[in-house]
Amino acid sequence: MTKITMIGAGNLATHICRALSGSKYEIVQIYSRTKQSALQLAEEINAPYTTDVRNIKPSDLAIIAVNDDSISEVEKHVTFPKVHTSGTQPMSVLKGDKVGVFYPLQTFNKNLEVDFNSIPICLETNNSELNHIVTSIAQAISKKVIHLNSKQRKHLHLAAVMACNFSNLMYQFSQEICVKENIPFDILRPLILVTANKVQTNEPKMTQTGPAKRGDLDTIKEHIMLLENEKEKLNIYQLLTESIKSRS
Amino acid sequence: MTKITMIGAGNLATHICRALSGSKYEIVQIYSRTKQSALQLAEEINAPYTTDVRNIKPSDLAIIAVNDDSISEVEKHVTFPKVHTSGTQPMSVLKGDKVGVFYPLQTFNKNLEVDFNSIPICLETNNSELNHIVTSIAQAISKKVIHLNSKQRKHLHLAAVMACNFSNLMYQFSQEICVKENIPFDILRPLILVTANKVQTNEPKMTQTGPAKRGDLDTIKEHIMLLENEKEKLNIYQLLTESIKSRS
Repeated sequence: MTKITMIGAGNLATHICRALSGSKYEIVQIYSRTKQSALQLAEEINAPYTTDVRNIKPSDLAIIAVNDDSISEVEKHVTFPKVHTSGTQPMSVLKGDKVGVFYPLQTFNKNLEVDFNSIPICLETNNSELNHIVTSIAQAISKKVIHLNSKQRKHLHLAAVMACNFSNLMYQFSQEICVKENIPFDILRPLILVTANKVQTNEPKMTQTGPAKRGDLDTIKEHIMLLENEKEKLNIYQLLTESIKSRS
Repeated sequence: MTKITMIGAGNLATHICRALSGSKYEIVQIYSRTKQSALQLAEEINAPYTTDVRNIKPSDLAIIAVNDDSISEVEKHVTFPKVHTSGTQPMSVLKGDKVGVFYPLQTFNKNLEVDFNSIPICLETNNSELNHIVTSIAQAISKKVIHLNSKQRKHLHLAAVMACNFSNLMYQFSQEICVKENIPFDILRPLILVTANKVQTNEPKMTQTGPAKRGDLDTIKEHIMLLENEKEKLNIYQLLTESIKSRS
């Protein structure tokens, strides 16, 4: 049985532990600075824990699922094969001849259940033996496993910010308009879902619709008038409209 | 049985006809300039059709589901109660004392099946008797029916452009980055769907995540470096990042 040490007891650590429970991979120890988090996760998956970095015990692999800022500090105390779980940090932030990255591309919340199976996991390692172990672990919990180098992973993270954080900002804009005009935001929810659903099987270029795509200048002019007292939204509306037009 | 004349035989007209089939509302005639469209829809729902505006026969209600530009031209020939289906045109584009708007908020494609039941329909009328008829029709095919005036409908359309067309542009940006870096776009699809799913039951303000929201300046700086040769995306990245920051 492959033995894993979990470094961290936050959202991601919790979800990885849950996904691995019942598999052939055993969590043999949990480390967290915070006793409460360590204890809670340790009890849930019935594993020992420590809050002292000096007590971290060697195993086949440490999964370092802590904040980006804390990786360097904690990794010094992990003298056996290890991976971090960050989308933005390069592999080289870990020191050693068996290090890698195990990055699940998703936003996690401890209290919401997650179907790990559909979450893509991006891998990178500096050693073929470690690569084999890490790939097996990833495939045990996800059906989408991919190898990306540190440069690709950085770009993927940027792409994720655009596709997800920025989309969410667009939802926020639309809600702000609804609130101001006394329109229930609920009316827009089905359209938001359909828009995201369409690109599950199509290329985003093919699913683009709307006045900018159609070159419907009358509607665009009218929208600009509606936004005349909303400088920020107006700016963004014009920039994104030009961007769609230039791709049409 | 309430008798309806369908003016238009495009995507929207087709989906409304399909949704009404088997209901207590009968399509008694289809009008379209284009014989092929008229014939195809007429055969599908087993109704008579005409391609000559002078042959449009009076019924209880005409649903004018044609392009915005064509509404004024065709509505002149409809001398009985009528509604148009546009999100951007005011009710006043129709002349008469029994006119209104019947605007389903969704993007349609003739060849894709649509669950009309979950599509919100926005209504406006200038007559209470007509309002009663139109509301009943809308409720027969959708479980979300709402009354909005022309000003609200314009703002709703603007909000929809932001929530949907602009989100789709964000998906396009992210795909462009993936293509350039040789990353399969497929990795981002689950995250896109989760992002849209989250706002189905939460406020967008509550579901905002990412470096701008966290104030993670190192990551933002790195993203800006990755975009240094992509002026358009860089501009938009900075503007949207500032916008998220100002809301955090």
